Amino acid sequence: MDDRIHEHADVLVDWSARIESGDDVVVSVSEGAHDLAVAVAEKIGDRGANLVTTYGSSEMNRAYLNAHDGEFDDDPGHELALFENADVVLSLGGGRNTAAQTDVSGEVRGAYSKAHEQTREAYMDTDWVSTVHPTRSLAQQAGMSYEAYQEFVYDAVLRDWESLATEMSEMKDILDAGSEVRIRSEDTDLTMSIEGRTAVNSTASVADDSHNLPSGEVFTAPHATAGEVRFDVPMTIRGTRVEDVWLEFDDGAVIDYDAARNPEVIGELLDTDEGARRLGELGIGMNRGIDRPTDNILFDEKMAETVHLALGRAYDACLPDDETGNDSAIHTDLITDVSDDSSLAIDGEIVQRDGHFRWEDGFER
Amino acid sequence: MDDRIHEHADVLVDWSARIESGDDVVVSVSEGAHDLAVAVAEKIGDRGANLVTTYGSSEMNRAYLNAHDGEFDDDPGHELALFENADVVLSLGGGRNTAAQTDVSGEVRGAYSKAHEQTREAYMDTDWVSTVHPTRSLAQQAGMSYEAYQEFVYDAVLRDWESLATEMSEMKDILDAGSEVRIRSEDTDLTMSIEGRTAVNSTASVADDSHNLPSGEVFTAPHATAGEVRFDVPMTIRGTRVEDVWLEFDDGAVIDYDAARNPEVIGELLDTDEGARRLGELGIGMNRGIDRPTDNILFDEKMAETVHLALGRAYDACLPDDETGNDSAIHTDLITDVSDDSSLAIDGEIVQRDGHFRWEDGFER
Repeated sequence: MDDRIHEHADVLVDWSARIESGDDVVVSVSEGAHDLAVAVAEKIGDRGANLVTTYGSSEMNRAYLNAHDGEFDDDPGHELALFENADVVLSLGGGRNTAAQTDVSGEVRGAYSKAHEQTREAYMDTDWVSTVHPTRSLAQQAGMSYEAYQEFVYDAVLRDWESLATEMSEMKDILDAGSEVRIRSEDTDLTMSIEGRTAVNSTASVADDSHNLPSGEVFTAPHATAGEVRFDVPMTIRGTRVEDVWLEFDDGAVIDYDAARNPEVIGELLDTDEGARRLGELGIGMNRGIDRPTDNILFDEKMAETVHLALGRAYDACLPDDETGNDSAIHTDLITDVSDDSSLAIDGEIVQRDGHFRWEDGFER
Repeated sequence: MDDRIHEHADVLVDWSARIESGDDVVVSVSEGAHDLAVAVAEKIGDRGANLVTTYGSSEMNRAYLNAHDGEFDDDPGHELALFENADVVLSLGGGRNTAAQTDVSGEVRGAYSKAHEQTREAYMDTDWVSTVHPTRSLAQQAGMSYEAYQEFVYDAVLRDWESLATEMSEMKDILDAGSEVRIRSEDTDLTMSIEGRTAVNSTASVADDSHNLPSGEVFTAPHATAGEVRFDVPMTIRGTRVEDVWLEFDDGAVIDYDAARNPEVIGELLDTDEGARRLGELGIGMNRGIDRPTDNILFDEKMAETVHLALGRAYDACLPDDETGNDSAIHTDLITDVSDDSSLAIDGEIVQRDGHFRWEDGFER
């Protein structure tokens, strides 16, 4: 087995999930993630933790959902009991076809999701971590060869996480102390308030309440957004490719929008509910192992020299106890490249210019 | 997808497990059983039952067990809760390497098994059914091409189960009414008592407390065995091939043994405990879809024109309420061909001669 698979398992079990002897662990294995699952099982055995393995098959899900009449039982007892009694859930993504469930109706998916609310809460109450094993299907989605995609994934995952966590905590301190953020780039001049909000240092470790591997972003919940922004990193939203999305904000809400490709997807998104027109997240990508978009939000939003904004729901962790923040059924990230002719300023002071943070070599004052 | 896979799923879900709307079902998917799992998921969705899918990977098990220090926690809470809350468990066998766990020590396996006693009981309390999806690995174990092995498996599984159940109930009635069984064949003349014992009609349906698909045998728990028997169907016991095992019984216990190949395996088996020298089962194979041994006990013991005897533990279902029957840590089946120059008699009356039952064409009085 490729050494990098064992190293990935090491990071996942020790740095991310902090698995200890006696922990009751669920490992969810996608159709293409077998090799990583074997390496993870070895680590879990070595740590003296207890293992139940579930199979996360898109093709089984599709077959089940399409055959069902859509009236799902609420939170089936065996599934709920499994997650209520688990300490850790490791979700090993990596399928064989990213389009495997495209012919399941949104209505059925929604009904299934709604019927499993308690189960999802039980899952979220564990020390869960999501990661992906590089598969040919994900390489294809990224438009890359399999070999090159493997290198890409391991560059993103096998970081010096302690050192990156320290660097990101500096960014968090700046955001926590700040009141106003201004982002400038081509077709972009946006201001937003972060007054009273708390940034999350997303270190890919449950110790920091960070549940994705890779991670490498610092994010907070902005409000009172004003100005315009162009998202020049292309992405797939609800199965449709969108490019060069442009939004104009006033008093915290989107007042105009456009896109070079499939603008109607953005229109539908904005019409979801009241909160869909407001921002739930400002995130700053800081993982220098991620050097290009691969049409996979797990990676794209952490890409170094990018900033992302999410329409919709805000994370509780960013909000004061007495505030609910922006509420919405959606949370859709949109990403903009800030590597060139760009700046990120907090309270008038430039923190990042042309992709370089002020504590990095190459930063020009 | 091959139509036979859908038919297999139909038999499994409807005839064997009798799955109904609202049932909480666990489907355990072996490494090579994906296609059957998809067909089963579709059926379960159609029935309106609730699905949790586990991954039964020999390679993960091996990695976990070999890395563990061997001091396993008793019945981990998440796993126990899953099975305690399940109505049905469908185990879809079919791996990619039947030797995948040969380098796990027996001691570690034993310790793991011992630590999961309650979990196993919870599993056995469900309407569980074991079946296998034909894989290249199982074809290889059987010494057959993949195409031929698929035909073999579907011939065994896709029977007219209702009609076979009726035929087998005739055999059960004869055994229930009988007192003494005598089996004669080459190197074989064995008598045993079945007085007071109840035969099980193994119809591959939980409705008859029968949990294997395919099935197709009638079995009971004999005692007071005397005489000699040659088992001419070769098999693999504890990873070692044995051939032409010969046993001599007196007063219910083995007093001498031999084998043409690896007799020491039989010696070790007999030395396991007191009950290992006595019989726990007499089974009569009645599945005419199984026409050859394939070194897989799930199939071999149901082969038409064979009889099998198990050393070790007897099944409770065969015993009167006040009897415990033979007790042992082992239950090892040994199979003899009765297709030629053979007879099976109950209380002196021939029920099967040269492979033909007395209600079948070709039976010679």
